[in-house]
Amino acid sequence: MKNFTSVHDIKNIKGILSKALAIKQDPFSNKSLGQNKTLGLVFLNPSLRTRLSSQQAGWNLGMHVQVLNAGQDAWTWEFSEGTVMDGSTTEHVKEAARVLSRYCDVIGIRAFPLLQDREEDYSEPVLSAFLKYATVPVVSLESATRHPLQSFADLITIEQTWKEARPPKVVLTWAPHTKALPHCVANSFSEWMIKADVDFSIANPIGYDLSPEFVQDTPVYHDQMEALKDADYVYVKNWSSFEQYGTMPPVEKDWMLGEDFLLKNPSARIMHCLPVRRNLELGDALLDSNNQLVYEQAANRTLAMQTVLSELLSPTL
Amino acid sequence: MKNFTSVHDIKNIKGILSKALAIKQDPFSNKSLGQNKTLGLVFLNPSLRTRLSSQQAGWNLGMHVQVLNAGQDAWTWEFSEGTVMDGSTTEHVKEAARVLSRYCDVIGIRAFPLLQDREEDYSEPVLSAFLKYATVPVVSLESATRHPLQSFADLITIEQTWKEARPPKVVLTWAPHTKALPHCVANSFSEWMIKADVDFSIANPIGYDLSPEFVQDTPVYHDQMEALKDADYVYVKNWSSFEQYGTMPPVEKDWMLGEDFLLKNPSARIMHCLPVRRNLELGDALLDSNNQLVYEQAANRTLAMQTVLSELLSPTL
Amino acid sequence: MKNFTSVHDIKNIKGILSKALAIKQDPFSNKSLGQNKTLGLVFLNPSLRTRLSSQQAGWNLGMHVQVLNAGQDAWTWEFSEGTVMDGSTTEHVKEAARVLSRYCDVIGIRAFPLLQDREEDYSEPVLSAFLKYATVPVVSLESATRHPLQSFADLITIEQTWKEARPPKVVLTWAPHTKALPHCVANSFSEWMIKADVDFSIANPIGYDLSPEFVQDTPVYHDQMEALKDADYVYVKNWSSFEQYGTMPPVEKDWMLGEDFLLKNPSARIMHCLPVRRNLELGDALLDSNNQLVYEQAANRTLAMQTVLSELLSPTL
Repeated sequence: MKNFTSVHDIKNIKGILSKALAIKQDPFSNKSLGQNKTLGLVFLNPSLRTRLSSQQAGWNLGMHVQVLNAGQDAWTWEFSEGTVMDGSTTEHVKEAARVLSRYCDVIGIRAFPLLQDREEDYSEPVLSAFLKYATVPVVSLESATRHPLQSFADLITIEQTWKEARPPKVVLTWAPHTKALPHCVANSFSEWMIKADVDFSIANPIGYDLSPEFVQDTPVYHDQMEALKDADYVYVKNWSSFEQYGTMPPVEKDWMLGEDFLLKNPSARIMHCLPVRRNLELGDALLDSNNQLVYEQAANRTLAMQTVLSELLSPTL
Repeated sequence: MKNFTSVHDIKNIKGILSKALAIKQDPFSNKSLGQNKTLGLVFLNPSLRTRLSSQQAGWNLGMHVQVLNAGQDAWTWEFSEGTVMDGSTTEHVKEAARVLSRYCDVIGIRAFPLLQDREEDYSEPVLSAFLKYATVPVVSLESATRHPLQSFADLITIEQTWKEARPPKVVLTWAPHTKALPHCVANSFSEWMIKADVDFSIANPIGYDLSPEFVQDTPVYHDQMEALKDADYVYVKNWSSFEQYGTMPPVEKDWMLGEDFLLKNPSARIMHCLPVRRNLELGDALLDSNNQLVYEQAANRTLAMQTVLSELLSPTL
Repeated sequence: MKNFTSVHDIKNIKGILSKALAIKQDPFSNKSLGQNKTLGLVFLNPSLRTRLSSQQAGWNLGMHVQVLNAGQDAWTWEFSEGTVMDGSTTEHVKEAARVLSRYCDVIGIRAFPLLQDREEDYSEPVLSAFLKYATVPVVSLESATRHPLQSFADLITIEQTWKEARPPKVVLTWAPHTKALPHCVANSFSEWMIKADVDFSIANPIGYDLSPEFVQDTPVYHDQMEALKDADYVYVKNWSSFEQYGTMPPVEKDWMLGEDFLLKNPSARIMHCLPVRRNLELGDALLDSNNQLVYEQAANRTLAMQTVLSELLSPTL
């Protein structure tokens, strides 16, 4: 593995899952791996879980960790080629990526989409620039279209908790929100579930179908209750429209899962990547029940990053 | 000790003082205590001394330290229960505290009062939420009503410098300021002095009496010079009114201690928690004299935190 | 060496260069030097390279590193003596420097000039205050008039790459910019080159002569091409006027070096401290060529700081 920006960087998904579960047994056993090495974390957008879990993952491997909040701690970056930089940008991403590569052994980068121009966002301007110019491995800490560390943590969480022989039924369901949100978590989750040994489907209102590139031949339901029938894992997440890019077409029914759902589906496990807006995206009854896996998902973020870093520093798969 | 949020968490005040002074002799002797453990520091308000001293304390014990400036690095938190989160808050403190508990072994949290609603502030909304939802020990880095690490450092400073057999006379005196300030330092100092082996009294203008809960039967003087007579330690601090909550009732006399006071009381030791507004709260003559203990107080902040962390990680008292 | 704020703190420039090159061979060999010691980095202005390289340097020596963004993470400082602090400043630099000295074993500080009052800037108000009040060694991370760590890294870069017996011809040339920039990099580079074993000259437009204190008897050309003839190292940098302080007098010719220069001078090495505004200060052709040394300069920032810290912690020269 040279970089980690999507599930496609993983050659052996069962192998990396086994590696993660082995690290979970003994997270501090490989501190020599990262000795005298530095992980650089670059945030163009705010972060709680990703920042904490990535630092923790680096430390668990004996690395030093640099955190850089770009635009706040440092300069604003230019991304276009050949431009005369007489405007507001003060450093070209070429220099930023190349210089960071001299200070860090692995670079993690987070850059959200602007949700205004679909083609622009889906070309991954920031991540692509780092992949092009950095001379060390690059890890996506959530990009314009994907959040692979979240999905890897989600898959670990399912693997850990599923004890039956048959593949679990996993449903990704859209949920309401007041703000137009990116597709990253939903796109990535779909990509990972397609590759995993699960029975996967998606539920979302009309107008909210995700990009075909990420959904592929996954069944997509516009009737939430039909989709959720007998679901073992319910992954709740809001996203804005892909077709009418970045907008929020009106939704008639109430898509928020509450106590009713739990009463009818007492064994369904509830997942969410957090942060979650309580009683808007998901009811208190579910988040405060034993059915929720959200804190375990958050904890597994460290494990996902630590596994990825281990594999980048010393490939075994 | 399960948490550290006030002097009431300390069962044995002499014991913890001895522990602190022992650590001061050899601050780096117990680095295995915090190995593979993480201290998370959450600041809802700015900090210099608390941030530096807490990091230092964690490192001295071999811990990793995460610093999180909430609202700036991360999300804005919701504190009320059962609310539909369709407003400006993006994460509930339930999730924040529970997730932080998965990444950190001890959580330190700072949250100032708003000084608008006394009942609200004195209910300690932020600290209480963390005590309720965190699943690891919580340390107050200054809350709405108390600053216990400061007071512990202050007590260490007195203990270190007092060499006579009789208990020292310690006076907490109000000082002028241009801004309405919280009661935390004064409340805590009072609580700790009441429990310590000192002769304690308070001087403040009419209208500035502290909460009876914190003052108890401590003598309170409205004549500063009468109170300060023969004081061995003079603790200088501004605070706003508790009665007319958060206001600054007019004060006729000049309560700032300057060169005159030093000439008349050449052996009085001057304390202040810093930051101090020179020549408004306290004269240059005192701050630049050998009578001041303010830098020693600041240095002892590390020691206070290190002692608290040691006791939380491995209780000995 | 007690502090490091200019080339004048270096008694033996050949000795410190040798020391740097020895550290480069084995950067992790002296981790006991900084054990249980803390480097405090105080930034009154933003930083990317200086922050990352200084942290790295401290870690390479086994130090802990505190980063403090003053004014953002902490308080705003008062610098004038004897003032009644009833305005907007909340802590005097006396307290800040003395308190930091209790938490840190070495303090690094960055403070840019305001470019409004020459006398004020050239008196180095922030750095001087820290030198006066700190009780531990102070390292300039770029001050109002100098950037000595940059110049030291630049000299290392020249030393590393120059293989001929004769001294190299080194030319510092002014370049265009849209903003009025400080003189720090240019002043420092001049000071260091004067002390180094190189043939040094400066090229700048009329109206842009640097302070005579820093230039001394260095040849100054107002014709760029005349100055650059047969140059082995071309150091490109913008600065504002020293005479008409902080202004940008009009410049007739185009001073930006582009592809033409490279074609005529195929062996010239191109240096810049970064960040660089591409195609305004320096053409893509040069920055993307093998003639550039800019990433090596950036990498050598770590080495410069590590050498300075080593010398402060354990003087050998």
